[in-house]
Amino acid sequence: VKRPHLDPELLAQRIRAGERTAIARAITLVESSKPAHHDLAADLLRILRPDTGKAIRVGITGVPGAGKSTFIDSLGRRLIDQGHRIAVLAVDPTSAKTGGSILGDRTRMGELAQSDQAFIRPSPAGSHLGGVARTTRESMLVLEAAGYDVVLVETVGVGQSEVAVAGMVDTFLLITLARAGDQLQGIKRGILEMADVITVNKADGDHESEARVTARELSIAMKLITSDPKATRPPVLTSSSLTGKGLDEVWQAILDHRARLEAAGQLQARRAKQQREWLWALVHGELEDALRVSPAVNAIRAQLEAEVESGELSALEASDAILAAFVRDAEDLLRH
Amino acid sequence: VKRPHLDPELLAQRIRAGERTAIARAITLVESSKPAHHDLAADLLRILRPDTGKAIRVGITGVPGAGKSTFIDSLGRRLIDQGHRIAVLAVDPTSAKTGGSILGDRTRMGELAQSDQAFIRPSPAGSHLGGVARTTRESMLVLEAAGYDVVLVETVGVGQSEVAVAGMVDTFLLITLARAGDQLQGIKRGILEMADVITVNKADGDHESEARVTARELSIAMKLITSDPKATRPPVLTSSSLTGKGLDEVWQAILDHRARLEAAGQLQARRAKQQREWLWALVHGELEDALRVSPAVNAIRAQLEAEVESGELSALEASDAILAAFVRDAEDLLRH
Repeated sequence: VKRPHLDPELLAQRIRAGERTAIARAITLVESSKPAHHDLAADLLRILRPDTGKAIRVGITGVPGAGKSTFIDSLGRRLIDQGHRIAVLAVDPTSAKTGGSILGDRTRMGELAQSDQAFIRPSPAGSHLGGVARTTRESMLVLEAAGYDVVLVETVGVGQSEVAVAGMVDTFLLITLARAGDQLQGIKRGILEMADVITVNKADGDHESEARVTARELSIAMKLITSDPKATRPPVLTSSSLTGKGLDEVWQAILDHRARLEAAGQLQARRAKQQREWLWALVHGELEDALRVSPAVNAIRAQLEAEVESGELSALEASDAILAAFVRDAEDLLRH
Repeated sequence: VKRPHLDPELLAQRIRAGERTAIARAITLVESSKPAHHDLAADLLRILRPDTGKAIRVGITGVPGAGKSTFIDSLGRRLIDQGHRIAVLAVDPTSAKTGGSILGDRTRMGELAQSDQAFIRPSPAGSHLGGVARTTRESMLVLEAAGYDVVLVETVGVGQSEVAVAGMVDTFLLITLARAGDQLQGIKRGILEMADVITVNKADGDHESEARVTARELSIAMKLITSDPKATRPPVLTSSSLTGKGLDEVWQAILDHRARLEAAGQLQARRAKQQREWLWALVHGELEDALRVSPAVNAIRAQLEAEVESGELSALEASDAILAAFVRDAEDLLRH
C-alpha cells in the first residue's frame, strides 16, 4: 500500500489544532532515522517554529526508586486542574537496551495518561544519548506548537543524560529520598550542581519527619557542594505524591526560579545560549555518528585499537589512519 | 640560511643519550603545528616508542595559591637526592592568553631548574586544551625516552584540563589549603573524585594544626563525595614545602597507590585504556580543529549562529548547512 504524500503544512495545521494523531505522527517523524524523514521533519519544525518556545520547560531527575513517575503523575494532574496542558517526555539512552526503563510502561502514570490534557511520550529508541536528546528536543517543540504549556522532561539520574536535559529546559528539579546518613550517595556531584530545585520525596507517614531532617541536612550540604559561593543555592523541599503534601510548594519553587531568570533577563539569554550550544552539539553529534558508521573506519578500527593498546602503533599514527579513512566516507555520510 | 635536514634516527639517538638540546628540539618539534613537523614528530615518536612508558607518571593539581610550584620544587629536589631524574610538564590551556600562568616563570622552581637531573618545560602555547594535551603527552614520551623516571604533570585546578591530565598519568595528586570551614570551596567536585592522593599544603608554623584539622574534615567529606561506596578513598595528608615535613609521606602515598594498581594488574590495563581513549580523543580533536579552521564553515558561522539564537533558523537546518560546508574542506584539512 502506498502511503499518501505527507504534507508538512497540513500536518502543522493539525498539530496547532491539537490533534493527537497528528502530534504522534510528527514525533514519529522526528524520531525516524530515514533520510527522507529527516528533511520532512526539518520542514515541519521550520513551519511550527513561530508557535514554539511558549511552555514552562522543566527537567526532572532522581535516583531510581525516588518515585519520579508517581510524582509526575500527581503533579501533572494538579496542573491540569489549574488549567494547564501537560506534555511528559523522557530522555533515557539506556531504554533501547533495557526495553524501556522510564515512561515505557504507561501504567506508571496511569491517571495522567487518561487525561485529554496530557500527552505522555516514552523515551525514543536510540542507542546513543545524542540521538535521544535530539529527538526529545524536537518533540518538545512539536508539543509546544500543539499548545502544551508545561513540558516535563524526565531523565534517569545517572551519567550524561542530565547535561543533555539541562540544555533544553528552564528549570531542573532533582527528586531524592530520605536515607539517613547517606542521602548524597548515588547522586553524582555534577547533578547536584545542576539542580535548581530539590525535593526529598515520599515524605509521608513514618517517613515525613525523616524526610524533613534529610532536607535540612541536604540544604547544609549544598553549601559545601556549591563551587561558587555567590551562586543562589537551590531550595530543598519535601513532598509526597501519596498525600499531595508539598507538591504545590515544589511547583511554586519552579515558578519562582523561572521568574527570577525572567526578571534578570536571563530566560531569553539562557534559551539563546541553549540554541547555540545545541547547534554545535548537533554538528558534533553528526560527525560522531558518521565516524561510528563509516565503513572505511570500521574496516580498520579493531586492528588499530589493538595495536595502539599493545604499543605497536602510536595513537598519532592510528589517528591519522582513521581520519584518512573517514575522509573517504565523509561526503556520503554528512550530506543529507 | 637553509637548516640542515632533521634526521629523526639521529635525534632519537641524542635523546636516548640524554642531550638536553636534543630533548628541547624534539619537544619544539612535537609542539609545532606545521604539517612537515607533524610527520617528523610521528617518525620520532615511533622510533622512541620502545624506550617510553617506564616513568612514574604523576598529575598534580590544586587551586591557585595552593603552592603547587614550590611543592614540586621541594619534592623534585628530594627525589633527585634519592637518585631519580625528574621531568616537569604543565597543561594550562589558558597560558596562551595570560602569557604563561604556570611554569612560565622559571624562577618559581628556581632550585629544581638548576639541576642537571631535572627538565622543566612550561605549558605549550596553544589556544585550546586538545592541542596542549596532545603536545604534553608526546613531550612526556620524549622525556621518558631520555631517561627521566619521574614525570610530574602540573595543571591548573579548574575546568577540563584535569580530565586531560588524568588521562595521561598513573596517579593524580590534589594539593589544597587549610581554610577553616570552606576548604572545599573552589575545588570542583569532579576533581575531588579524580584525586588518588590529597595533601593539605602549607602545613607549617601557625597553620600546622589548622591543616591537620582540615585534612581530617576533608577525609570525612570524601566519604560523602564518593559516589561509589566501595571505591578506595584517597588518603588525605598534610605537607609543607617550607619545612619539608610530610613530603616523603605524600611521595610514599603516590608510590603506594601505584603499587596497588600494579598488584591488581591495573597499571598496564589503565595505560592501555588511556592509549585507546587517547586515540579517539586525537581523532575527535582533529575533527574539531578542522571544523574550527574550515574556511567554508567560517564563512557562514556567525550568520547561522545569530539566526539560530534569534529563532529565525532551526538548529537542525543550521547544522545541516555547517556539515555541508565542512565536507567541502574536509579532505584538505584532514589528510596530513
